[in-house]
Amino acid sequence: MQQYKIVKYRGEAHRIQEDQLSIEAPLEIQLLRGSGKMRRKSPLAITMRTPGQDWELSLGFLYTEGIISRRSEIIEWRRPQRLGKQAVDNVIELHLDPELQIDLDRLDRHFYTSSSCGVCGKTSIDMVSQHISHLLPARRPSLRAQLFYQMPDIMLRHQQKFHQTGGLHGVGLFDVDGNCLFCFEDVGRHNAMDKLIGAALDQGLLPLSDHLVMVSGRASFELVQKALMAGIPVLAAVGAPSSLAVELADVHGMTLVGFVKKDSFNVYTGAERFNL
Amino acid sequence: MQQYKIVKYRGEAHRIQEDQLSIEAPLEIQLLRGSGKMRRKSPLAITMRTPGQDWELSLGFLYTEGIISRRSEIIEWRRPQRLGKQAVDNVIELHLDPELQIDLDRLDRHFYTSSSCGVCGKTSIDMVSQHISHLLPARRPSLRAQLFYQMPDIMLRHQQKFHQTGGLHGVGLFDVDGNCLFCFEDVGRHNAMDKLIGAALDQGLLPLSDHLVMVSGRASFELVQKALMAGIPVLAAVGAPSSLAVELADVHGMTLVGFVKKDSFNVYTGAERFNL
Repeated sequence: MQQYKIVKYRGEAHRIQEDQLSIEAPLEIQLLRGSGKMRRKSPLAITMRTPGQDWELSLGFLYTEGIISRRSEIIEWRRPQRLGKQAVDNVIELHLDPELQIDLDRLDRHFYTSSSCGVCGKTSIDMVSQHISHLLPARRPSLRAQLFYQMPDIMLRHQQKFHQTGGLHGVGLFDVDGNCLFCFEDVGRHNAMDKLIGAALDQGLLPLSDHLVMVSGRASFELVQKALMAGIPVLAAVGAPSSLAVELADVHGMTLVGFVKKDSFNVYTGAERFNL
Repeated sequence: MQQYKIVKYRGEAHRIQEDQLSIEAPLEIQLLRGSGKMRRKSPLAITMRTPGQDWELSLGFLYTEGIISRRSEIIEWRRPQRLGKQAVDNVIELHLDPELQIDLDRLDRHFYTSSSCGVCGKTSIDMVSQHISHLLPARRPSLRAQLFYQMPDIMLRHQQKFHQTGGLHGVGLFDVDGNCLFCFEDVGRHNAMDKLIGAALDQGLLPLSDHLVMVSGRASFELVQKALMAGIPVLAAVGAPSSLAVELADVHGMTLVGFVKKDSFNVYTGAERFNL
């Protein structure tokens, strides 16, 4: 966990308090094959994870993806030697049994690395920053707390399929008066966000500098990254943001709001946009 | 949405009723580049999505991943011609402006395709089936409803970090007496499941034929796939399962339970394991 200072709104009142963030950081899994001079290293996958059980995570990943079929096919695991402290914690090397036949070409196209490449949060943030083409508008006080209290209800009214299945993420585009321009639903949060941004691009609405986006679940690094690409200055989530989501939002001056309920919410970054 | 017959438990009573499932199905995004004889097609990504706005989804995906920077860089989109009906609905071809420079090699390593390769749910299920090494045990009545009512509370007691952050998924391994053997937390559901299976593999516990696994969120195709790899016969989720999760569980005789609450839950597949 990571300590973080937030602005907590309850009704019209607000105060600054300490909050705990879930840690999100990239893990790169590397495979070491062969031995002696024939030893070769190849990156296998990068996943955004909560640190702490990297050995169990990589072992489970290789097993559930069908790369190994027993524990003994991994001879040893270690942290690489030649990287700095933060990077070392986010890379794991697995030394495979030289007898094990695996088809790395097949694997190459199979794993998620997304935009979060790089072996530490800093690298991930730098990578995103290189691709952003819209600067967010200056942080002038323009947001009312009341707007956020209304958003969950308005969004629920737009989530047609959620009512029937209870099983879909929703992402809604709002103007500052609380009107929901459109809402997309999907089994994947990232898909719902891509649908919303795709629809906005299709209609010539980018960058979405005067808009807010609300997501039904948690705010991950990936969702903040996508919102930044579309120039969205305010992202509100019903759930919690991760540490790396907060860090990325902060670097780019985005207002990131979490735990949005009918009578309270937390502002993690960019609180200057509120009439404090 | 998809209609599905479930067994609904409330207290000790149960009845069969109709339920609505959120549709989960793979979408393959293909890029068409060049023109005339120089036209080339390359697969870009496969994502598990809810069908319905494939154009918006792929447009948003290409934009947020930095592959295109304006709408006009896609000349047209269409469904491929030579595939069967179900496949056609799950593939989209985007014809790019021939002037657009993109580095496909860079992209190759960047996108999520996971184990769910293939252009329709059927293919995804077949792909998984090829890799499964543990058959699930026969469906004999051994499960009590009471066990499921206790699991959410037991799991919450094990979710240390969730209490402090409110922002982590939890996955717990239970025996049939409701003892939680271990519980893992992560910002990503698939990571929490990999950690659990990795820990079980490390301790020589696979296949987990006598165990149940509970997940704090929804049950996706990917989570069912991972549970099957570890030989887990019963998967319980606090949230809803998707259509493809239910289909995969059904094919392999897994018991899939959703919406687990203190006094009710839904059995989607493998109800024969309950003392009905």
